[in-house]
Amino acid sequence: MKRIAVLTSGGDAPGMNAAVRAVVRKAINEGMEVFGINRGYAGMVAGDIFPLDAQAVSNTLSHGGTFLQSARYPEFATLEGQLAGIEQLKQRGIEGVVVIGGDGSYHGAMRLTEHGFPAIGIPGTIDNDIAGTDYTIGFDTAVHTATEALDKIRDTSFSHGRTFVIEVMGRNAGDIALWSGIAAGADQIIIPEEEYDINDVVAKVKEGYEKKGKHRHIIVLAEGVMHAEKFVSLMKEAGDTSDLRATNLGHILRGGAPSPRDRVIASWMGAHAVELLLEGRGGLAVGIHNEALVESPILGSAEEGALFSLTEEGGIVVNNPHKARLDFAALNRDLAH
Amino acid sequence: MKRIAVLTSGGDAPGMNAAVRAVVRKAINEGMEVFGINRGYAGMVAGDIFPLDAQAVSNTLSHGGTFLQSARYPEFATLEGQLAGIEQLKQRGIEGVVVIGGDGSYHGAMRLTEHGFPAIGIPGTIDNDIAGTDYTIGFDTAVHTATEALDKIRDTSFSHGRTFVIEVMGRNAGDIALWSGIAAGADQIIIPEEEYDINDVVAKVKEGYEKKGKHRHIIVLAEGVMHAEKFVSLMKEAGDTSDLRATNLGHILRGGAPSPRDRVIASWMGAHAVELLLEGRGGLAVGIHNEALVESPILGSAEEGALFSLTEEGGIVVNNPHKARLDFAALNRDLAH
Amino acid sequence: MKRIAVLTSGGDAPGMNAAVRAVVRKAINEGMEVFGINRGYAGMVAGDIFPLDAQAVSNTLSHGGTFLQSARYPEFATLEGQLAGIEQLKQRGIEGVVVIGGDGSYHGAMRLTEHGFPAIGIPGTIDNDIAGTDYTIGFDTAVHTATEALDKIRDTSFSHGRTFVIEVMGRNAGDIALWSGIAAGADQIIIPEEEYDINDVVAKVKEGYEKKGKHRHIIVLAEGVMHAEKFVSLMKEAGDTSDLRATNLGHILRGGAPSPRDRVIASWMGAHAVELLLEGRGGLAVGIHNEALVESPILGSAEEGALFSLTEEGGIVVNNPHKARLDFAALNRDLAH
Amino acid sequence: MKRIAVLTSGGDAPGMNAAVRAVVRKAINEGMEVFGINRGYAGMVAGDIFPLDAQAVSNTLSHGGTFLQSARYPEFATLEGQLAGIEQLKQRGIEGVVVIGGDGSYHGAMRLTEHGFPAIGIPGTIDNDIAGTDYTIGFDTAVHTATEALDKIRDTSFSHGRTFVIEVMGRNAGDIALWSGIAAGADQIIIPEEEYDINDVVAKVKEGYEKKGKHRHIIVLAEGVMHAEKFVSLMKEAGDTSDLRATNLGHILRGGAPSPRDRVIASWMGAHAVELLLEGRGGLAVGIHNEALVESPILGSAEEGALFSLTEEGGIVVNNPHKARLDFAALNRDLAH
Repeated sequence: MKRIAVLTSGGDAPGMNAAVRAVVRKAINEGMEVFGINRGYAGMVAGDIFPLDAQAVSNTLSHGGTFLQSARYPEFATLEGQLAGIEQLKQRGIEGVVVIGGDGSYHGAMRLTEHGFPAIGIPGTIDNDIAGTDYTIGFDTAVHTATEALDKIRDTSFSHGRTFVIEVMGRNAGDIALWSGIAAGADQIIIPEEEYDINDVVAKVKEGYEKKGKHRHIIVLAEGVMHAEKFVSLMKEAGDTSDLRATNLGHILRGGAPSPRDRVIASWMGAHAVELLLEGRGGLAVGIHNEALVESPILGSAEEGALFSLTEEGGIVVNNPHKARLDFAALNRDLAH
Repeated sequence: MKRIAVLTSGGDAPGMNAAVRAVVRKAINEGMEVFGINRGYAGMVAGDIFPLDAQAVSNTLSHGGTFLQSARYPEFATLEGQLAGIEQLKQRGIEGVVVIGGDGSYHGAMRLTEHGFPAIGIPGTIDNDIAGTDYTIGFDTAVHTATEALDKIRDTSFSHGRTFVIEVMGRNAGDIALWSGIAAGADQIIIPEEEYDINDVVAKVKEGYEKKGKHRHIIVLAEGVMHAEKFVSLMKEAGDTSDLRATNLGHILRGGAPSPRDRVIASWMGAHAVELLLEGRGGLAVGIHNEALVESPILGSAEEGALFSLTEEGGIVVNNPHKARLDFAALNRDLAH
Repeated sequence: MKRIAVLTSGGDAPGMNAAVRAVVRKAINEGMEVFGINRGYAGMVAGDIFPLDAQAVSNTLSHGGTFLQSARYPEFATLEGQLAGIEQLKQRGIEGVVVIGGDGSYHGAMRLTEHGFPAIGIPGTIDNDIAGTDYTIGFDTAVHTATEALDKIRDTSFSHGRTFVIEVMGRNAGDIALWSGIAAGADQIIIPEEEYDINDVVAKVKEGYEKKGKHRHIIVLAEGVMHAEKFVSLMKEAGDTSDLRATNLGHILRGGAPSPRDRVIASWMGAHAVELLLEGRGGLAVGIHNEALVESPILGSAEEGALFSLTEEGGIVVNNPHKARLDFAALNRDLAH
Repeated sequence: MKRIAVLTSGGDAPGMNAAVRAVVRKAINEGMEVFGINRGYAGMVAGDIFPLDAQAVSNTLSHGGTFLQSARYPEFATLEGQLAGIEQLKQRGIEGVVVIGGDGSYHGAMRLTEHGFPAIGIPGTIDNDIAGTDYTIGFDTAVHTATEALDKIRDTSFSHGRTFVIEVMGRNAGDIALWSGIAAGADQIIIPEEEYDINDVVAKVKEGYEKKGKHRHIIVLAEGVMHAEKFVSLMKEAGDTSDLRATNLGHILRGGAPSPRDRVIASWMGAHAVELLLEGRGGLAVGIHNEALVESPILGSAEEGALFSLTEEGGIVVNNPHKARLDFAALNRDLAH
């Protein structure tokens, strides 16, 4: 393989640039030529493809977002879309592709591979909820940003004796809520993977201000449960009479200079993706398991360790979905006062 | 004067602890004893007052919020409330008070002075909107936090080609919006002190994506204008078709380790307040003007330089209200692309 | 076990407070009483021991250093020292101890256990070089601080076309150098675990400025190799003619608010140490392996998985010393340009 | 004036990019064309000059260093050097120049103006020691970085009961030492503008550990006094027996994302420099005085407010040299415990 391309797809995550840089530098080091594709699969189909040299990715390592930009492009799920993309690759002599993004992006990588263009997926999302890896690029930075924000709100919570319900990103997974909540000493953490009873939530707040003279209270809420404003309404209905505020950390969690851990892991994964392409392999997703690199077939049987299988009816089964750290949820209950 | 007290009042602001520390250390240095009052005027009336030594304020300089806590206490506007507070001071032999907070807190300081307990106000609020000073404690930190958040959102704005409307605190004053907006290279800044036409706002966004191939756009919106969600609705009604998002930086702007500038200025003001009490003066608010310390009568005539005057009917007139930096609003228009 | 104590020993590391907090909160949650010991083993022998409640460790989570302070105390290696310490524990009815620190601190824990006071070690050091764990508390924060500093120096390196040799802590282990070097895009990383040839180092710098028009160059040097000033001299002797500067990040790497990862892992380990004491176990060190908690005997045979064994002559053998990530050293060579 | 150029000269400082961006955007807004000159006067003479459009300076605002690079070039002090530079400007039709840098850079600006190419100086240096302005671009960021580093070292100082002597940049001016020292609660600040007695320094350290049980001690030392290692030797000679360490913050103070204040002031100054050129004025340096923009003749008589005058013998007189904040030195003595 002498010529490869790299794209970022799905929601942007800090560290994507580090992964792109690693793909470019490693490939050049191995004697290959590298192309960047702007705006994910949309740019592939539109031919928004340009050569990248080692110099072009200097100074990208410490920048958030993705300099290749990203875009949703559901049309790539169709055969027509895929063929249009492949035509663009062919015209430039590109033989393999590295795709940095989420589960959705992996499906495109699978299709490219099936069409004879080996493609490798790298997990990039702040949510840490991708199958086949303990760790996704961007997660550590998002936890860092969330923790810093929680530390700040804690100042006001203490100064004014207020209860804050703070919403953090995480549509399906409570990982950001759990890690940042433990790190910031949250009193309660509410995640989609665990049941909760709003009366217990309120009882715990009341225990603080009625029995312990403790008027501050921090509740970290994962977006996947509900919005903070709604949660605050439920608490009021359930009898909470503390000075109660809702706040949503929102989009700040997705940007910012990537943490060292995100930069290192992204670099490591990016270089490995190139090694797999060099071996002529495709249809794989890179991951980290037990602090070592692993790769899994994107599509196949559970026995082969594939991330996804197809049912007879054509439905998609996630063989080994990301699991919530319920032990961490329990840990926080042990440490909250 | 041998014994003074210090309290924080109104919304918490980073740097309040630095001001308290300076009051304590300076006063001890001058041979005085110092008491801390918890939860502002509420704590004064409740007798929540305790001695502070030099050691007690070690390690507070770098912490956000106020370790003395703060609280609203409208009852202090009544004579009854004031006398109850004074009784507590008398019992402990406290002769003067330093009040760190906003305009509202100054009125309490004025009343204490009138009752024979000289009190000095120090401007503490992130909004930078207090009369009699170019600069309020907490403002620089809030601008720093807002700018960091804007820098992060800019990453996603670029990566996805999105328009963001980002709301920052500032009920009456656009200062946080202006400084953080210029610092983060905002495309537009909307503040309460300046008219805007929603059609012009949208036209500017459109000019970017229709003529310049520029799909990212950052609008910084001061809370005092309206909420971000509402502004986004108005933009849609006015024909914006970009990928438009609203986000509210919310309470993170009030917390966090104070910036060096906030710590230095708070230290400077705190020490000066003690000097004024030592001279037996009260009913004054400390401020910074042209990078030098100034003090102004809280209540009096405009000619004397008082911050507030009373009309014959007893209404309050702000003699020299904080002024918006309209030159900075113009500067940003010159620099936005 | 109804009463335990906790101490920090050896060099301070960010996250030690989080571990102490977890020990205190978890133990109280399990119905135990907890004492803090100031200044490590020195304070134990001196009886500088005091009760800690859940409230006492509020607001410690986000603070660097150790609020229990630390100190070197070689006297605890003697039987006399140990008995003096135990006497203090006995007087207060303390039955078990948690020791947060490095290898040296573990030996004290082993002795206490042998004397009938079960003690558990928790690895706390920024160097990441403790046997029996993939990860030590403080390492992630130190890497973060180092990376931020390298990012800053990179700005000047580029602006002025300079070569910088930047020394980071790590007497025996190159981990901080490797992680921060990869994260900051260092051109070269020099660690104690790997040979280097000063002529090759210089050749690589020259290749940049003679062939590629690249005048900036960043070399990250682990303290364990030699000091930066000395390294710069060797480079000059070997013919480097670039604008060469030495700088030492020094003590800033040991302080600062712990990163979320350090806080979470410290919390996790602290709670686990209490669980082990509850089971009546001692002489163990807690660690993280493959992202799960593990515990190892501090002293024993290699077969039992003990961290240290004694030779017949009484010498100490480290059974499974911390290993350098030579794969990461290779990764950086692949990515440097 | 239809075509101008911009360069950065002298030591790099955070915020220089913001100033360049403002020059470019403002000039384009006024219908001018703008060129960037790489590596200061060296690049001018070498013809390393290229057009800059509004887009080219996007994403520079938040980056440290100077993307135009900087270099020392003493040859520009000669007539020959100047004429060579002017020749390059002429060839491109460039009529005016903005120079961002220190006093040395201003002299070049003066020469260009005398040769008929109006040039405006903007003060850029972290040291805050340029005549004609209360404030230099980069100073606030350097204070921020120094304060963060001091906060970190304070953690270790407390944890281990150590005395630290911490050297910060500032060859002629103690401003960084004073601001960061006050902000971080330094026990002592030693600056070139003030006498000190090493015996008093040691006496103060001893007072802490002998009388107050206070074993930590932070001394902030401006580079212009001497190096930290040397200062520590003097302290030992004078009888200090505390656990004494020297550390030098070194080059980290010059890099990093500029603070909001540096970005705003740089933007403001940059736009103003263009306004002056538009009026056909040159030989001026922009500054901030009393929070307002001012401009001063670079060379002339003291009566005209010129920064520098020539003696009859051709020597240079600084008419209004930057003054140390001795009141801040006194303030810190009042607040140190």
